[in-house]
Amino acid sequence: TLGLSATGALAQSDPLSSWNEGKTKQAIVDFVTAVTTDGSADYVVPADRIATFDNDGTLWSEQPMYVQLAFALDRVKKTAPDHPEWKDTEPYKSVLAGDLKGLAATGEKGVLELVAVTHAGMTSDEFTKIASDWIATAKHPETGRLYTDMVYQPMLELIDYLHDNDFKVFIVSGGGIEFMRPWTEKVYGIPSERVVGSSIKTEYKVVDGEPVITRQAALNFLDDKEGKPIGILGHIGKRPIAAFGNSDGDFQMLQWTTSGDGKRFGLIVHHDDADREVAYDRKSVFGKLDKGLDDGPKLGWTIVSMKNDWKQIYPDD
Amino acid sequence: TLGLSATGALAQSDPLSSWNEGKTKQAIVDFVTAVTTDGSADYVVPADRIATFDNDGTLWSEQPMYVQLAFALDRVKKTAPDHPEWKDTEPYKSVLAGDLKGLAATGEKGVLELVAVTHAGMTSDEFTKIASDWIATAKHPETGRLYTDMVYQPMLELIDYLHDNDFKVFIVSGGGIEFMRPWTEKVYGIPSERVVGSSIKTEYKVVDGEPVITRQAALNFLDDKEGKPIGILGHIGKRPIAAFGNSDGDFQMLQWTTSGDGKRFGLIVHHDDADREVAYDRKSVFGKLDKGLDDGPKLGWTIVSMKNDWKQIYPDD
Ligand SMILES: [Ca+2]
Ligand SMILES: [Ca+2]
Repeated sequence: TLGLSATGALAQSDPLSSWNEGKTKQAIVDFVTAVTTDGSADYVVPADRIATFDNDGTLWSEQPMYVQLAFALDRVKKTAPDHPEWKDTEPYKSVLAGDLKGLAATGEKGVLELVAVTHAGMTSDEFTKIASDWIATAKHPETGRLYTDMVYQPMLELIDYLHDNDFKVFIVSGGGIEFMRPWTEKVYGIPSERVVGSSIKTEYKVVDGEPVITRQAALNFLDDKEGKPIGILGHIGKRPIAAFGNSDGDFQMLQWTTSGDGKRFGLIVHHDDADREVAYDRKSVFGKLDKGLDDGPKLGWTIVSMKNDWKQIYPDD
Repeated sequence: TLGLSATGALAQSDPLSSWNEGKTKQAIVDFVTAVTTDGSADYVVPADRIATFDNDGTLWSEQPMYVQLAFALDRVKKTAPDHPEWKDTEPYKSVLAGDLKGLAATGEKGVLELVAVTHAGMTSDEFTKIASDWIATAKHPETGRLYTDMVYQPMLELIDYLHDNDFKVFIVSGGGIEFMRPWTEKVYGIPSERVVGSSIKTEYKVVDGEPVITRQAALNFLDDKEGKPIGILGHIGKRPIAAFGNSDGDFQMLQWTTSGDGKRFGLIVHHDDADREVAYDRKSVFGKLDKGLDDGPKLGWTIVSMKNDWKQIYPDD
């Protein structure tokens, strides 16, 4: 029993207990140990321990569609009575008819318009309430779980592990910044000021004596691909030493991060677990991973096999 | 001697020892005490203790001109040999002739162009080095002191006091974000990710296999007036509970901050000390304070008289 207790204590003290032993987990631990060991040639002062995480498909599920797109579709249905013209206008017509192929046919332009329109026309405070209310009850169409329960347990442990090692951890997502901020602190332990994302234009004005920030149906900043390094520099002012993603939208973020001086770390989550999650990569509409799968290993990036490297997928598993 | 020692200890333990006793200092202490006292009706959790500070004229000197403008003028002189056409083109012509009135005559457009051009055409890393090198040695034309020694001791104490009370302190300046970031941590104890400012457009690209972020001579975001609440929401995602400024460029930041629910604090530094600094307000080219002087007190804002409220101006005084 003494032996068993010791094993129990060991297991409990492993900050990455949902990760299987192997070279992926070892690469993470080696990197963190190297940059945090005082006197090591690779030592990095805490102020420069910047780590950036993509969100969709890296920290939580993005299939069968981005959670934010599910939110936008719900908003179209909910606000359709105020927009009778939507019955005959794409992309709304397809959404209201439940025709996702029709929506897809409107292309990126249609989808961006859909997101912009459903996310605009209210104040920032109002939008925060709408998004908060929605995420509190919205459920995944297949698992019936809350979306915020479909976050990846190994990645939650990784964030905590980095925090425990005095890293400053940021989300850097193509998703809407104000869609994420209401819940990232509670779900990931990442406060709103450490969330970087895409945004629509806003305006400050005083209405009936009350200052408000209103949201407009026009893109301000797209935090994807080349946009990620730009968003990071704008928000953080430093190049990360570690970056975590899952798709080619993260390629430039990892490229920029891992080409800096000193020890660097890039990691790509590869969705290869058809049994416990969804297997997808080169041909996926959401979270396409093609170039990263070919070039990542050559660039020294760590590719996570969800199937082999993760003991557990979701916190409630 | 026992009495003297006790007085010495008391003086040392006052976190705002450069502030004279009086209602200004008391207002600061009362606010911080109210929002940090557990069980108080005004209690605010640490995550929401957001405080924003303007920089020029609030944390450091802005006379006879913004420090960043002095930097831009130096850049014009230094890089003029590469731009023979500047001899005959405004606003460069005036700058090279040392004719500040001629520069002023080119208006805001001329000055913005000057700043954009002198801050562009290099990578972000190169600019950081140029700005760091300059600020390390550049001196104020009248006092001969380093600009970074011309920061206000009472405001440094105020930042430390807020940090000690678990506030998250941000700079929100009309100045260039990448001009400030190289030195704010060292001078103010505020890290780069907590600096919000104006910016020019940047681009991510790979040059000879090396990823770089290049700077372009076009404005991206002007963090002034209505831009300050927009910049704060974009970077922080929350409305501050306390805001500190010195000019009408801060009006909207204080208006938005102090109109939120719960206890709020707005403070304006009034430059009324002609002997120890410079007295200026309603008619100043830099740091014009007019509306804030009239409306601030009605809105419950605290107006700091540098002359009466501050025992000391600079750290080395
Ligand atoms: Ca992703
Ligand atoms: Ca100012």
